Amino acid sequence: MTKHLQRDLEVLKQQLLTMGGMVEQATDLAISAVVDRRKDLAEQVLKGDDDIDRKELEVEDECLKMLALHQPVATDLRFIISVLKVNNDLERMGDLAKNIAERAATLCDQPPLAVAKDFRRMAERVRKMVHECIDALVERDVELARRVCLEDREVDEENRRRFAELQQTMKSDPATVERAVSLLSVSRHLERIADHATNVAEDVVFLVDGEVIRHLRLTRARAQ
Amino acid sequence: MTKHLQRDLEVLKQQLLTMGGMVEQATDLAISAVVDRRKDLAEQVLKGDDDIDRKELEVEDECLKMLALHQPVATDLRFIISVLKVNNDLERMGDLAKNIAERAATLCDQPPLAVAKDFRRMAERVRKMVHECIDALVERDVELARRVCLEDREVDEENRRRFAELQQTMKSDPATVERAVSLLSVSRHLERIADHATNVAEDVVFLVDGEVIRHLRLTRARAQ
Repeated sequence: MTKHLQRDLEVLKQQLLTMGGMVEQATDLAISAVVDRRKDLAEQVLKGDDDIDRKELEVEDECLKMLALHQPVATDLRFIISVLKVNNDLERMGDLAKNIAERAATLCDQPPLAVAKDFRRMAERVRKMVHECIDALVERDVELARRVCLEDREVDEENRRRFAELQQTMKSDPATVERAVSLLSVSRHLERIADHATNVAEDVVFLVDGEVIRHLRLTRARAQ
Repeated sequence: MTKHLQRDLEVLKQQLLTMGGMVEQATDLAISAVVDRRKDLAEQVLKGDDDIDRKELEVEDECLKMLALHQPVATDLRFIISVLKVNNDLERMGDLAKNIAERAATLCDQPPLAVAKDFRRMAERVRKMVHECIDALVERDVELARRVCLEDREVDEENRRRFAELQQTMKSDPATVERAVSLLSVSRHLERIADHATNVAEDVVFLVDGEVIRHLRLTRARAQ
């Protein structure tokens, strides 16, 4: 590897860490906006989404430049392609945080639903997954990546629990339907952020081990 | 461009068209399973998802090989990167069709809800977008790509209408809550398939015009 490429790869990692941090913070603020009914935090997330979008373009641009300039092969090529994919996932996670913030802003204007409190633990888990998947990528830490994939199952379970609770809420009091549907969306958005984190983690395993766990996992799930 | 690269690019386009066709068909079958209450179609979609996943890996592999072998620059590099991104979008559209099929399978075992019929038009629109975004990519047809982006707004509108209807249904009859929540998911999954088609279309515009409409559109929306 040339020194020049090495330096550029370092810069790319830093950019990705920055973007990961932005997405992590957006997720955090958006869910606090829901649970603590803080419209100001929701607005902060909505305002910050442009920055995440700009960062995505910056990273993509950097990757394209590196591919054209260094014409990397083998591991370096795979790393840059992984960054391109992860970059995409991060931008969509940012979008989902924005969607949560939009729901939060609406919910703040309506009477509270007790069930909203239950989102805190799920949100904490998802925030952690976002952090860990980026760490796993820049450190090429396969063990950490595999842990993220396992955590995704817990989030799916939490999501199912939120769905059951919210359906119960709507059945016992039809006046809650709009608010409960908003919270269903929040739950699903969180679950999707976790899915994206899992995509990133799977890319890390593929990058390091060359093993395609995405589809292995699928085949295993089918066989059970 | 070498003859070898030209031939490989042709193969790549064909693979992408095949995959696009698979996703289009899955979307189509999944929604028929919901509207016509055909569990057999739902099962067909669930079974076919593995093929879409395999195709994704094939396309990704092909792209990596082409990058390493031909070390393309400029337009060819951008095209291959676009294919990588689009490939990812298509796989996720396939997943969403699978999610719809899962909901359909559950709904088939429960008494019908009249509102399910209203999904046909929305589904037809989405299926068309899936078809058009792939055509736009392989033909580098910017006009078609722009049309896909506009169609996305109609789908968003349909999604909002489905949400309003379904909330009304739940409020007037709490016994419908589970089924209505399933249909909410179907509506959202369809809307997300359309979002992915829009991502693809935006990539086409970027590829051909070098214009980043994703974020332009966003800035414009904000300004309104």
